Amino acid sequence: MTTGRLVVIGGDAAGMSAASKVRREQPQREITVFERSPHTSYSACGMPYYIAGLVDEPQKLVARSPEKFREKFNIDVRIRHEVLAIDPAAQRVWVADLEQGSEAWEPYDQLLIATGAEAIFPPLANSDADGIFSLSTLVTGIRVMEFLDRELPRQAVVVGGGYIGLEMAEALVRQGLQVSLIEKGEQVMGTLDPDMGVLVSDALREIGVTLYLNESLVGYEATNGRVSGVVTDQRAIPADLVIVGLGTRPNSRLAADAGIVLGEKGAIRVNPRQQTSAANIWAAGDCAESFHLISRRPFHIALGTVANKQGTVAGTNLAGGYATFPGVVGTAVSKICKFEVARTGLTEREITSLGMLYRTAVIKSKTRAGYYPGAGWIMVKLLAEQGSGRLLGGQIVGLEGAAKRIDVLATALTAGLTVQQIVDLDLSYAPPFSPVWDPVQIAARRLLGSDE
Amino acid sequence: MTTGRLVVIGGDAAGMSAASKVRREQPQREITVFERSPHTSYSACGMPYYIAGLVDEPQKLVARSPEKFREKFNIDVRIRHEVLAIDPAAQRVWVADLEQGSEAWEPYDQLLIATGAEAIFPPLANSDADGIFSLSTLVTGIRVMEFLDRELPRQAVVVGGGYIGLEMAEALVRQGLQVSLIEKGEQVMGTLDPDMGVLVSDALREIGVTLYLNESLVGYEATNGRVSGVVTDQRAIPADLVIVGLGTRPNSRLAADAGIVLGEKGAIRVNPRQQTSAANIWAAGDCAESFHLISRRPFHIALGTVANKQGTVAGTNLAGGYATFPGVVGTAVSKICKFEVARTGLTEREITSLGMLYRTAVIKSKTRAGYYPGAGWIMVKLLAEQGSGRLLGGQIVGLEGAAKRIDVLATALTAGLTVQQIVDLDLSYAPPFSPVWDPVQIAARRLLGSDE
Repeated sequence: MTTGRLVVIGGDAAGMSAASKVRREQPQREITVFERSPHTSYSACGMPYYIAGLVDEPQKLVARSPEKFREKFNIDVRIRHEVLAIDPAAQRVWVADLEQGSEAWEPYDQLLIATGAEAIFPPLANSDADGIFSLSTLVTGIRVMEFLDRELPRQAVVVGGGYIGLEMAEALVRQGLQVSLIEKGEQVMGTLDPDMGVLVSDALREIGVTLYLNESLVGYEATNGRVSGVVTDQRAIPADLVIVGLGTRPNSRLAADAGIVLGEKGAIRVNPRQQTSAANIWAAGDCAESFHLISRRPFHIALGTVANKQGTVAGTNLAGGYATFPGVVGTAVSKICKFEVARTGLTEREITSLGMLYRTAVIKSKTRAGYYPGAGWIMVKLLAEQGSGRLLGGQIVGLEGAAKRIDVLATALTAGLTVQQIVDLDLSYAPPFSPVWDPVQIAARRLLGSDE
Repeated sequence: MTTGRLVVIGGDAAGMSAASKVRREQPQREITVFERSPHTSYSACGMPYYIAGLVDEPQKLVARSPEKFREKFNIDVRIRHEVLAIDPAAQRVWVADLEQGSEAWEPYDQLLIATGAEAIFPPLANSDADGIFSLSTLVTGIRVMEFLDRELPRQAVVVGGGYIGLEMAEALVRQGLQVSLIEKGEQVMGTLDPDMGVLVSDALREIGVTLYLNESLVGYEATNGRVSGVVTDQRAIPADLVIVGLGTRPNSRLAADAGIVLGEKGAIRVNPRQQTSAANIWAAGDCAESFHLISRRPFHIALGTVANKQGTVAGTNLAGGYATFPGVVGTAVSKICKFEVARTGLTEREITSLGMLYRTAVIKSKTRAGYYPGAGWIMVKLLAEQGSGRLLGGQIVGLEGAAKRIDVLATALTAGLTVQQIVDLDLSYAPPFSPVWDPVQIAARRLLGSDE
């Protein structure tokens, strides 16, 4: 069994999943975690709900505090400690104690890099002005909330129509702000095909968000060091609060500086056991690469689910066991205004870029039996490989009871099911929960051309 | 392509799915449907909601009326026509016109038997008294409602704690009746293991239903031809309304009388194309056998989903195409009081009866992120084959957001996934919809012993 000191860089989902798994397997092992923020194991996905006022204090977003890890799990978690360099040859990391202002080498026998991802924040004109935020760590979420309470902004601009941008736009509407959103694509939610994304765009307009589609961020306007507007390639929009939601990139600079091989989108290349190219160095979570089970290519996605899985796999291996992370199918879900929005697998553009041919169908259905009270509608889009009929992707936008249906498609994708096999699935039916043909099966029947 | 007259016996889900499919493929084909009730294509599953007052008129339970089939689909639907005999040698059926009182032979080139299932109604003492009902056709549902309106009963006894019995018990509580329920098993919902069924029993007690478990129906008491009580092997219970929900049996007498081979539980034996043992005679729906994909044995279940699928497969074949119905995994769902209750695959008893060894785990989790408002709890039980780790079954009881999760397990069962593969599934996550590990994955991790 592996012994010696395990050092983990990063105390969020992947790092703490791994540390906890190792502790469970190896009760006596020395485990040290360096985390530069004051928080461990928090839900970054929960920040929009905190800012919307649905969650009353940020501590509720913390699943397990540093104290709990120290006391209950005997894991030496050192918050406000930033690792500045990795020395793979000497098996040590250079660590800054951000409170004390001191720096020192710390040795390791095994190292796990779980540094997460950082928000993309282009250095544009006036981007250092007060009132411009990106959301990545819990600290930034708290800062936005403090700014709202202190400055009482009235006109917010959200830059970027992805999950975080849309959830934040809705949160700010809830807080009473006038909200505009800039998106460079033709619709928001670019992880969906545009024919599904347009539904989400419409839902945002319905709650009062002004959308500027097909527009790109150019810079900001500022007055006395405070943001006063956002400049796009087509106009200037007044703003006293700006949320930049342009996605994330892997925090892989430390690894790259140490000569560790990077892969897709700059994420750390790992094998299915989460090993990097360097001896005794592992990586997991938003900083590490995944494998896409449908495109059969390296893939990068920053998601808590993936981070937890990779962390658990890394922990098993670090403790001397054997585990692999097979990969992802690109599943994601979000609540945007009245809609539940979900996707899995590949979109039309992704399929085309792989040189594959596909067939597609979109259907509209109810989420309950038509006669049962409270039935809402749902739209389901399926994509399947031409010829084989193998499912390649699915997208769902709908009211109540819509989102988790994507999981049937995610499971079918993982298992390599064809559209006919989806029609044949023995899915549950009762009037309060679905029509007699579940909407995903109605879509599958439409794709096969067999519905009436 | 097959031509000649197609005769269908039974105008509900299976029969009309088949007839519609044939019409779509063969616009000129002569199609005659004999249906002894006045209704076609109605939702038997919806009757408890009609009786509960959630659906305001029974016509809303009819998906497509006989007139619509005649006018829009050119299908000669003859309601109030009962087929009394099949003559396979002469390819004809003996049909009674229940309105006119006449009887005649009707020829066919192909015959589809879609006679459904009938409620089990044991001929016990006073079982012909007024006020005792079983629920099978829409007509019986309407009669119960008329009885409620006319007789204003106050004390109802439901016999049988299966889906229909439980849904009816709840419906009658909603209508203000005092309700008792008799169940011969140790818990209601015998399609679940007792450790999950007990949750449903408790939920019924919570809304005021008096449960008599481990008790069997012996007969009824009657006064002046009207029911006044139910007699069990342990007591007499006063009642002015009795709902008998002892399950159903296939309506296969017509087929048996014609020499057609029956199978599991008296259902008509069919091959995967829905062909019976007799030339040019097919069967589909509640009267026909299915194949269980997990036990790998013949199986019978009366469910609208299966009837629709078998009907579509039969229709494809009757129209000269080729389709097969691979089988079922035993998925079912119901809303019972505050709970969503679902199951798929095999229970502990079913696994044991097959001589297989299994491992099991039960977990309790939230249906949303812990900090997100409105999170309810959910219990998930998984059963897996010892050694291989292949999933054998799952049961879910929980509050909001619970039921349709069974579909992930149904899909995983169909695909033959192991418990580890369920842990690895890329299921969707967002705080309003699930914890970061979906409850079905938490259960899978528990079963593997890998959770913390």
